[in-house]
Amino acid sequence: MLMIAQHYSKMSAASYYGGVEGGASSSNIIIVSDKGEIVSRADGLGTNHWLDGMDVCLKRINDMVVEAKKKANLPLDKPLKALGLSLSGAEKKEAQEAFITGMTEKYPTASEIYHVCTDTYGSIATVSATGGVVLISGTGSNCRLVNPDGSGHGCGGWGHMLGDEGAAYWIAQRAIKMVYDHVDGLQSSPHDITVVQDQMNSYFKMSGPFDILPYLYQNFDKKVLAGFAKHLAETSKTDPLCKKVFYLAGYDLGRHVAAVAAKADKSLLTNSTGGLKIACVGSVWKSWDLLKAGFVEGLKESYNGDAFEYSLLLVKVSSAIGAAYLGATKANYKLPIKYADNVDQLYHHTV
Amino acid sequence: MLMIAQHYSKMSAASYYGGVEGGASSSNIIIVSDKGEIVSRADGLGTNHWLDGMDVCLKRINDMVVEAKKKANLPLDKPLKALGLSLSGAEKKEAQEAFITGMTEKYPTASEIYHVCTDTYGSIATVSATGGVVLISGTGSNCRLVNPDGSGHGCGGWGHMLGDEGAAYWIAQRAIKMVYDHVDGLQSSPHDITVVQDQMNSYFKMSGPFDILPYLYQNFDKKVLAGFAKHLAETSKTDPLCKKVFYLAGYDLGRHVAAVAAKADKSLLTNSTGGLKIACVGSVWKSWDLLKAGFVEGLKESYNGDAFEYSLLLVKVSSAIGAAYLGATKANYKLPIKYADNVDQLYHHTV
Repeated sequence: MLMIAQHYSKMSAASYYGGVEGGASSSNIIIVSDKGEIVSRADGLGTNHWLDGMDVCLKRINDMVVEAKKKANLPLDKPLKALGLSLSGAEKKEAQEAFITGMTEKYPTASEIYHVCTDTYGSIATVSATGGVVLISGTGSNCRLVNPDGSGHGCGGWGHMLGDEGAAYWIAQRAIKMVYDHVDGLQSSPHDITVVQDQMNSYFKMSGPFDILPYLYQNFDKKVLAGFAKHLAETSKTDPLCKKVFYLAGYDLGRHVAAVAAKADKSLLTNSTGGLKIACVGSVWKSWDLLKAGFVEGLKESYNGDAFEYSLLLVKVSSAIGAAYLGATKANYKLPIKYADNVDQLYHHTV
Repeated sequence: MLMIAQHYSKMSAASYYGGVEGGASSSNIIIVSDKGEIVSRADGLGTNHWLDGMDVCLKRINDMVVEAKKKANLPLDKPLKALGLSLSGAEKKEAQEAFITGMTEKYPTASEIYHVCTDTYGSIATVSATGGVVLISGTGSNCRLVNPDGSGHGCGGWGHMLGDEGAAYWIAQRAIKMVYDHVDGLQSSPHDITVVQDQMNSYFKMSGPFDILPYLYQNFDKKVLAGFAKHLAETSKTDPLCKKVFYLAGYDLGRHVAAVAAKADKSLLTNSTGGLKIACVGSVWKSWDLLKAGFVEGLKESYNGDAFEYSLLLVKVSSAIGAAYLGATKANYKLPIKYADNVDQLYHHTV
């Protein structure tokens, strides 16, 4: 009887909100109670509609909803109050609307209301209800501002052929390039190249300069290249040239923030809770100690507006949580959220 | 009787030297008489051993020799005195020796003596007997010095992922990047972007910024990208931003020359026949008027040695001719050469 009462109570009194973080190769979902407690989690396959097509993504999202409801012992035929979808590849409004229409028509028991955004919006929502900045630096990089009114501005995110400054691939390419340019005489390195060159020869198993070419052309794999950045951070932290490359990466990441801060609503810059909140996502942030000096300098030198405070917040949780918040907001419900639980503060400073 | 006498005379009195320019997709041969006259030409398939394998390349070289001998009415069973092979992809000594051994063993009637070098060496040999610099700027770029003693120094030539500064792909990427960085607010363009942006939208059939991505990733074709540089040169010669991008290309090409000039034998820099001879190869040189100011500045700012004269010489002929000269030299024969016939002087200046 107690069990049934509890179940009845859950079904009648409580409402549930879901959030999905959708990536290119995997996705995950959380379900949150109206008290802000996470009641279940589940994983799923990739849900980037550019890669897998809309129908497959819709099915995978519903599969995750079903599994997460089961884990939380929620009735499968009762829709969630709202489901936020924070999806890689869902930049365009047309795609966002197609997700809402598709889920509503094909899977009417999944959720009553939907909110669809890109993964960058979902990340910002994990650190702030009113907007902020997300600054991604993983294999690639990207920066996006979301203002309190939902308007925004992006900087970067065009991939390794057109930018991705400050990301792992960029760091690796830059380190390699500095060695090659120095040996060629095209550009003298500001520091001795020996350590970085030795690590390059070791990581890429090179016995001569031509041996880098298969990694860049015939057998190109961005992740293998990007892995060299991690290798450098692990092996050469104290080497001046390695430090210089990471300084430059930090500098360019700071420039991205300067670019979007120039379009930020004043309220994001002047609040009393740490100033502009910058959600830091991606593995390169593990090397914050190497990035820091460059970041501070790059932001300062590129920003022309009034002084403002900022907080770099390392996101510890899935952007599915931010997506759930956004979904609840769309359903006019304000989930009780402890943002501090979602992040570690990396740094706080004033430009 | 006259015909026979002529033929007999050719066979007995005259010696013939061949030269091959070997590219990735096509090759060509010339045969020169000992008086320096070109007696025949023929075309062939690609002879880059990295792409087609050694055996296929050897056969294709012999096929060209046979065809060119036929055209010149030379006996097929009498080897040329020497054959110079100026081949793309033949950087390493091992490969050069494999070509000599392979031709000698498999095709004993092709030539008595061989000289194998990369296409860069062949190009330099079209402008000077004692060495000089070749500066390639086509889809990619490369720069190489050859000293009178055959020693040399290279700068660049690592492909679009690691450099190729000043080449057509680089110019296109740089122009696109300046537009994107300006719109993002990452880096303000020094000039109005409208003309270059409009040409970009038109050339790549874009209706929004994401439309560039397939050209850079899914459907990447370096030649299509490089074609945008040509398009810009044709449509936007007077636009300040277009001019700036070509200025920067010229600047970086000048830096390449500064890098190799620092390693040049004094005699190349101080001769009285125009100073350092720089063989200019590739389609980007058609835009010399756009490159010039940057080139002069880049060379001047990057070079730290004593003042020297230089001549930029646009190569009008196949590097097969240079290869034939090099082959003859290996056979201890000095072909009579009018270098002035091989080139147009683009520019003459003193650093």
